[in-house]
Amino acid sequence: MQISKQNLEEYQDKIYDVIVVGGGMGGLSAGIYLQRYNLSSLIIDKGKARSFWMQELHNYLGLPSDTPGRNLLKQGKDHYLSVDGDLLNGYVEEVIDEGETFAVRVKVGRNQSLYPTFRAKYIVAASGIIDNLVPLDDMKNVYEYAGYNLHVCMVCDGYEMTDKRAGLFVGSENSIKMAFGLSWFTPKITIFTHGLFEVSDEMRSKVAKMGYRIIETPIAEFLGENHQMNGVKLVDGTVVPLDTGLISMGSHYHNTYLTSLNLEMQGQNLVTDKVGRTSHPRVFAIGDLKVGLNQVAIAVGDGALAATNIWKEIRQKTGPRPWVENLEAVAS
Amino acid sequence: MQISKQNLEEYQDKIYDVIVVGGGMGGLSAGIYLQRYNLSSLIIDKGKARSFWMQELHNYLGLPSDTPGRNLLKQGKDHYLSVDGDLLNGYVEEVIDEGETFAVRVKVGRNQSLYPTFRAKYIVAASGIIDNLVPLDDMKNVYEYAGYNLHVCMVCDGYEMTDKRAGLFVGSENSIKMAFGLSWFTPKITIFTHGLFEVSDEMRSKVAKMGYRIIETPIAEFLGENHQMNGVKLVDGTVVPLDTGLISMGSHYHNTYLTSLNLEMQGQNLVTDKVGRTSHPRVFAIGDLKVGLNQVAIAVGDGALAATNIWKEIRQKTGPRPWVENLEAVAS
Repeated sequence: MQISKQNLEEYQDKIYDVIVVGGGMGGLSAGIYLQRYNLSSLIIDKGKARSFWMQELHNYLGLPSDTPGRNLLKQGKDHYLSVDGDLLNGYVEEVIDEGETFAVRVKVGRNQSLYPTFRAKYIVAASGIIDNLVPLDDMKNVYEYAGYNLHVCMVCDGYEMTDKRAGLFVGSENSIKMAFGLSWFTPKITIFTHGLFEVSDEMRSKVAKMGYRIIETPIAEFLGENHQMNGVKLVDGTVVPLDTGLISMGSHYHNTYLTSLNLEMQGQNLVTDKVGRTSHPRVFAIGDLKVGLNQVAIAVGDGALAATNIWKEIRQKTGPRPWVENLEAVAS
Repeated sequence: MQISKQNLEEYQDKIYDVIVVGGGMGGLSAGIYLQRYNLSSLIIDKGKARSFWMQELHNYLGLPSDTPGRNLLKQGKDHYLSVDGDLLNGYVEEVIDEGETFAVRVKVGRNQSLYPTFRAKYIVAASGIIDNLVPLDDMKNVYEYAGYNLHVCMVCDGYEMTDKRAGLFVGSENSIKMAFGLSWFTPKITIFTHGLFEVSDEMRSKVAKMGYRIIETPIAEFLGENHQMNGVKLVDGTVVPLDTGLISMGSHYHNTYLTSLNLEMQGQNLVTDKVGRTSHPRVFAIGDLKVGLNQVAIAVGDGALAATNIWKEIRQKTGPRPWVENLEAVAS
């Protein structure tokens, strides 16, 4: 059931088996599995998952390779609701460990916000990450191309960049190293620092040896039409023609709501075991939030695995169910 | 390219980056990723993957829950061929470790068979398993319902069995335990041993306590219409009405071609690390063949992960690629 501001109340007394934080690919897959195990689940989704921005999902088995991420998200939500999952659009502010259950405090609505609390035995953290983009004054100009031929994921879209003139947009010296990986797909690399940091002489020399260019003048705007970026205009008026681009400026992790649980981290990623369990036995982490490869196919598999392991635990705790009518018939 | 008996020759001199054994969900996902990493891959598929028999795939994110497994396989093969993957219908008889490469001996064609050998640096074992079915004299009668409402996977289809009268078809005492898990979905369980083994008194008592029935008389045939099984007729003429069924008689593992590699096993499953690598550094195993959960979503994620790790290794070995034209321009 889609929960709204109007019917929030009736869901607050319930103790869900699982609350899934995040309605992206991983969270939806987990939710579908949980519901099909006849468990009760609530997905709380702040909207605009990372995959929402993907204009074409090229590498997910079973879908035509021009499928927009938002279509897959829509299909997944309908699927989840069709197996009676509960879905709430809201922002999870905090998860509090109460012992047997977790209390999940949510902000619902941007205006006249409500602050309900929901409870569950298990938490699946599936809130993911979002890519930092090139910080221009006019962000609309960036959104015009990001997710089209201005990519944010080399693993996903390197293939589309093969042998093209590529801009690599970085925010730190460390990100420059991405050029050496990107050269697998194309060596025609121009690195843009946007004037955000100083490049060391050592790195400058490494890059020069491979023939890649570095441009440190800040970017004024991306050029192009119909969502196809074809170059960059610098603040000094210079135009640099490009065929494609990769933004590698780090990510924002949607994980602050987990702070009080003190889960084991590796950098900003949650550490999990083979089935997705974090250092808390009843908190699972799936998809981009956990250590591992950030791919839709992986997140979807993660969701299946976490849901299945939660189900097995609950099932074993519950024990087998007798065929009561038959027992009675035999006894009489 | 689809390879056939006619053009086998031209592919035998080539050393592929990766040969994928098995064109099911895992193998196709791996193949699509490998090709999109600009690696060369060959998928050798004997046909009729386990998912080929699934009439409805209920739990794979992004597809309507009545999608037949064969549709997904078809879509995946087209996808793989569209990114220039090589695909051969054939049966892999043996994989021989030659040091730098593997030699893969294949049987092509049932009649007037050819026995070509292909070579690759890496192997992805994605050949999966197939479920043992109830061994009736007339197997056509079993195929009539298997994959429809006569299921082979509780994790996949337990939901469809909820609170229905279920037959559990087992081939060994150990499989009877499946009843206690199945009772999560429905307690109305009748266990059929088909007279294949003796049930111990201890198990008999455990089952009786839960009210499940055991029928040891062999089965003559499944009853039903339009692929919907509605009962079982025993050899003594008794009819047992049912709404659904689960066959739990073990599986056949497609792994004999790996014998000479002496890979680490757990039972009949290959042991792998977190990215799908077996005890041989250049042999990966994905999907149902490896230790883990047998699900399409998992196999697809496995394929992405194995392919990505193979690519990273090859890429790092190769080193970065210089922008030659630009180096020359700077030098002149």
